[in-house]
Amino acid sequence: MGARPGTVAAAVAGMTADVDGSRATLGILAGGSALPRKLVEACRAAGRPVYVLAFEGAADAATVEGVPHGWVRLGAAGEALRLLRENGVRDLVLAGAVERPSLAALRPDWHGAKLLARIGFKALGDDGLLRAVIAELEAEGFRVIGVDSILGDALAPAGPLGALRPDAEAEADIARGVEAAQALGALDIGQAAVVQQGIVLGLEAAEGTDALIARCAGLRRPGRGGVLVKLAKPGQERRADLPTIGPATIAAAAAAGLRGIAVSAGSTVLIDRAAIAEAADRAGLFVVGVPVP
Amino acid sequence: MGARPGTVAAAVAGMTADVDGSRATLGILAGGSALPRKLVEACRAAGRPVYVLAFEGAADAATVEGVPHGWVRLGAAGEALRLLRENGVRDLVLAGAVERPSLAALRPDWHGAKLLARIGFKALGDDGLLRAVIAELEAEGFRVIGVDSILGDALAPAGPLGALRPDAEAEADIARGVEAAQALGALDIGQAAVVQQGIVLGLEAAEGTDALIARCAGLRRPGRGGVLVKLAKPGQERRADLPTIGPATIAAAAAAGLRGIAVSAGSTVLIDRAAIAEAADRAGLFVVGVPVP
Repeated sequence: MGARPGTVAAAVAGMTADVDGSRATLGILAGGSALPRKLVEACRAAGRPVYVLAFEGAADAATVEGVPHGWVRLGAAGEALRLLRENGVRDLVLAGAVERPSLAALRPDWHGAKLLARIGFKALGDDGLLRAVIAELEAEGFRVIGVDSILGDALAPAGPLGALRPDAEAEADIARGVEAAQALGALDIGQAAVVQQGIVLGLEAAEGTDALIARCAGLRRPGRGGVLVKLAKPGQERRADLPTIGPATIAAAAAAGLRGIAVSAGSTVLIDRAAIAEAADRAGLFVVGVPVP
Repeated sequence: MGARPGTVAAAVAGMTADVDGSRATLGILAGGSALPRKLVEACRAAGRPVYVLAFEGAADAATVEGVPHGWVRLGAAGEALRLLRENGVRDLVLAGAVERPSLAALRPDWHGAKLLARIGFKALGDDGLLRAVIAELEAEGFRVIGVDSILGDALAPAGPLGALRPDAEAEADIARGVEAAQALGALDIGQAAVVQQGIVLGLEAAEGTDALIARCAGLRRPGRGGVLVKLAKPGQERRADLPTIGPATIAAAAAAGLRGIAVSAGSTVLIDRAAIAEAADRAGLFVVGVPVP
């Protein structure tokens, strides 16, 4: 990336070249997790100006620290568009988790209500909803790009990430987990499954991966530990909601007695690859990218 | 059923006619839940002799009270067969949940080890495992029958069970839950899903339906409550592990803020139909049998 440290002021002024050669301000629509901040830091390092639009109740305060930003409610689509335009944003990246609100909690503004009426909020799964949101943003003149076009090495490679690799029993658990997670993904329900000794201990739906892992600690059986399998959905919109793991995922998996983690190669975002590999080695877990159709 | 009260002594002596005209002792392989005791009571009422083989760590003490019975470990296949034969059992019914043990915890006896080697314990999902166990029991000369051949009105009918019925929004949630639960069932992972406002809040895997319901209370969204959908697996072995609900399921669903329960008509066991309808009416929930392919 030719990382060149840039100051916020320089970034805002757009005085240095950005990651992909453009000087345009990158807009980051930020939900929870450490991913949006990673994007901020990559842009800073590359001297690209950035504007963070942080969603209330989802993004961390640390995400926007020292960066031009605004906070909006999820339903405030009109205000969000205004802020993005006022801050010179053309390219947009969606990063971090947002808990899907009920329609009542959403309290859409006028623009948001029109948008919701058009896309049919309730009929869509998460991926379908995000696809619709992306289409709307592009209709408004923004260009939505993927996280991986900013974070060059963010996507999991095929094969083991750290020093350890799955044995035959773990490979069998991974295969069962891939089968289960793909079924969830095909229905746009969730991304993750935990399998131990051939038995699916848990499947992810609305609770999220961390809650899934924590619950499976209590379902753990004697003998060899299980695996977490986390996959992109078949045909997933790659500019939104790619599965994500980070060092915290490793710590949670280790605490739950799991032996390792398998993710879809080429479509799972690693929040800090080096830190993940180090945490996995230290905890004695494998992390492996598996090719999935 | 022509319920004729019979004493245990009379039942054991086989001095009265049984439900389907046979005087043969019915063997009940009993796991957890109230279902095995319901079978005991139905046999008693019909004067059919009964012998309960209760699995340690699974069956309730109340199940065997005042009834000829023996307790065995799940792995003690040889001892189980001996007890069934010594007590004159020919017809067998499998009832109640048994948590699937790890191979280590199973500690199979000699007969059990041979059986496990033959059926390939770990390669099978729950339904596959039960099919194999049934095949083994029949190879040993027993006749395995379904719960519904003892409890005539045990299976859920199509349509509402109590006074309430789902509205259009609940119908949409049921349709989404059917889709999700059928995917789980096709993979032999679980039977149940909870859906609210079109969003799948949770899916059942190893934790069981009660834990699923309890977890979904914490994932509940503002607005109209969700539904529990519980289905037999596609092509499920009907002599084992049919989905089951009882008054306790209604209470748990009500406590979790659900609006109702949908079960597969003709393949879900109702542990006390009248009590379920009454509990549902009292709690303001609907219970509906839905036809599923």
